[in-house]
Amino acid sequence: MQELVPDFLADFAEFSTFGERNGGLHRLTLTDEDRRARDRLAALAAARGWFARTDQVGNQFFFVAEPDERPVVMVGSHLDSQPDGGRFDGQVGVVTAFHAVAALEDRVRSGDYRYNLAVVNWTNEEGARFQPSVLGSSVHIGAVPLETAWGLRDTAGVVLKDELERIGYLGGDEVALPAAYVEVHVEQGPVLEDEGIDIGVVEGAWAALKLDLTIHGEQTHTGPTPMARRVDAMYAMAKVITAVHELGLADPDGRLHTTVGSLGTEPGSPNCTPSRVWAKVELRSDDIEKVRAARSALDEVLTDLAATTGARPEVTSESLRDVGRMWAPGTTLVEQVSAAAGLSSKRVKTIAGHDAVVMNNAVPTVLFFIPAHGGFTHNRHEFTSDSDLGNGLRAMVGVLDALPGLEELP
Amino acid sequence: MQELVPDFLADFAEFSTFGERNGGLHRLTLTDEDRRARDRLAALAAARGWFARTDQVGNQFFFVAEPDERPVVMVGSHLDSQPDGGRFDGQVGVVTAFHAVAALEDRVRSGDYRYNLAVVNWTNEEGARFQPSVLGSSVHIGAVPLETAWGLRDTAGVVLKDELERIGYLGGDEVALPAAYVEVHVEQGPVLEDEGIDIGVVEGAWAALKLDLTIHGEQTHTGPTPMARRVDAMYAMAKVITAVHELGLADPDGRLHTTVGSLGTEPGSPNCTPSRVWAKVELRSDDIEKVRAARSALDEVLTDLAATTGARPEVTSESLRDVGRMWAPGTTLVEQVSAAAGLSSKRVKTIAGHDAVVMNNAVPTVLFFIPAHGGFTHNRHEFTSDSDLGNGLRAMVGVLDALPGLEELP
Repeated sequence: MQELVPDFLADFAEFSTFGERNGGLHRLTLTDEDRRARDRLAALAAARGWFARTDQVGNQFFFVAEPDERPVVMVGSHLDSQPDGGRFDGQVGVVTAFHAVAALEDRVRSGDYRYNLAVVNWTNEEGARFQPSVLGSSVHIGAVPLETAWGLRDTAGVVLKDELERIGYLGGDEVALPAAYVEVHVEQGPVLEDEGIDIGVVEGAWAALKLDLTIHGEQTHTGPTPMARRVDAMYAMAKVITAVHELGLADPDGRLHTTVGSLGTEPGSPNCTPSRVWAKVELRSDDIEKVRAARSALDEVLTDLAATTGARPEVTSESLRDVGRMWAPGTTLVEQVSAAAGLSSKRVKTIAGHDAVVMNNAVPTVLFFIPAHGGFTHNRHEFTSDSDLGNGLRAMVGVLDALPGLEELP
Repeated sequence: MQELVPDFLADFAEFSTFGERNGGLHRLTLTDEDRRARDRLAALAAARGWFARTDQVGNQFFFVAEPDERPVVMVGSHLDSQPDGGRFDGQVGVVTAFHAVAALEDRVRSGDYRYNLAVVNWTNEEGARFQPSVLGSSVHIGAVPLETAWGLRDTAGVVLKDELERIGYLGGDEVALPAAYVEVHVEQGPVLEDEGIDIGVVEGAWAALKLDLTIHGEQTHTGPTPMARRVDAMYAMAKVITAVHELGLADPDGRLHTTVGSLGTEPGSPNCTPSRVWAKVELRSDDIEKVRAARSALDEVLTDLAATTGARPEVTSESLRDVGRMWAPGTTLVEQVSAAAGLSSKRVKTIAGHDAVVMNNAVPTVLFFIPAHGGFTHNRHEFTSDSDLGNGLRAMVGVLDALPGLEELP
């Protein structure tokens, strides 16, 4: 199996050139850079004689054998990146999937392997350009209607369906749910590296509560209006940001992560206090009670704003992803495969959302992590060593090899 | 003189239609809406046979008599507005100037009036679209080089000189400094209304320290990165905003106004903590020592950020407008004219910058205020009653009428 790694690393390096910026990736979904990465994946699959399918939300599927009644195991991740993101987030999963499936393609063709195998690249996992994130996989399992996805707009007002059409990825293929789904991803946190572990076996997912918050103030001149008469939405939002961040900092177990990641103001003139300030607030924990307590604490902060600043807070949308539990036989399988390959492993929970977390709601799903240097992620300094990349590929081949033996699968 | 008012109010109402939005004005400098207001002013002046001049930064001048060696008194303000701003800020000054000068035009033509009179509309007073504010008057007195003004870009990257050309206001006329400058403006604060005063006689200007602040953080995922490892520029900026606002709130005399009015983030993805957050900070007082003390307090906050958040603050530009003293004979004159007209008056200081504050650095300048309901400004709810507008016009005619008697003028 060792001989797989050099080709894999060469492909990985080539994919890192599509949308390269300052050593990282700036490859937002459905941009020209994304199209180039998609086109390259399609060319590599075509060269192996695989069968390409593109669905109506632009998810790309490449089947080793022509799709028929035979059950399918899908393997993949996403090729889109954050703005000024890293090379490893998502791309590792797609390129690993490609080479792991290639390693098994002869057995699939000969019928020696119980399933058809397919590599998948999901559309708009990142949610950077279009919200919500994990969009392609969510449409695939029916959790987000196709029409909703098509109508999404980016901040420039560009419509998702138009962009699918523009880059040539508005497909028409119907692709059924697979028998199982497998994904490898970089950890995006520091635990594996800190503890010297090769493989993170994902047994569950943190809950995530996401809120869109708008604070309404009174637009006025930044000069003459007396301080006591101002209804300053910026000041009010600053109090919210501080409180949200400090809720997470104060958690004694480090098991509550709280963030305000993006913020906008209106009218955005340097000489006006804003009429409106809006932001996205996230509260994450592996303990739903901690999320609930943080939400209550946030409510108190919002209630106090009226008294302390006069500003009026409005939660315009709120969505909860509850704590998740991955498919247990898959978790055990990754542990066994890792041990057999001489790789150390540890059970972990994913804090970030992933396509695998979505797929896990519909079909037996396996997700495992490889280390991320320093925990850097959504950042051009993301780094995973060639050695760890190779471990991920070996573990993936091992998991796919062993998967047909699990009795829980059809 | 009473008969002047109905025509003045009719013109004022018409100007309020150019860029009208939700009862306010959305007429950013050098936009098509601004062009329409400029065109209308030019048409009104042409109908009276006045002599139009446009300089290279788009300032419009309308001379009653053909410009020659005779000294000129200029009267004016600005027609541009804030985004979703009000109808009174600036526009009151231009339309009042037009009708006050019209009331005196026969005397100017006959030579019975010692000066030529000119109405002026200054380009980009607001500083909403292009920074700095009070641009046209600053170029006129030589405080900002023309080339600097031409090269300014708005947030969309559009160049000021190109916009001047596009709307037909890239002029080539050389216009000399006047002998004196007179402006009426709405107060933009609540003092006159609160105290039942008709005319605010501006004797001085508050100091204003304006800073561009950038905070550098580490871009990361809003989920997995442990709170203790984050370098969150949004959290750091929230601490700055809170501290800045509370510096002003804490001033026992209400003589320190402190604001963060606009803010931007990069990369602006909902799933990334920002790599950079930038904001504009303003510290204003009529006591330069209060400004200095606030600047020192801000420095302490910035120094503490490194320890409390890890983020790195950087002040990328800083400009101080010191406290100003208006031309004393003009101040006395406005008081005398108000009293003669049966209008109550009070000496005040301007907290906002105005073209008159700029002109006062170069020539004898008179600035007076009329009330602003509730102190609302930079807001579509700006309101000044017809009665107060009429008082402003009467006072302006009186000031222009009496101005030639002042011995300090050439």
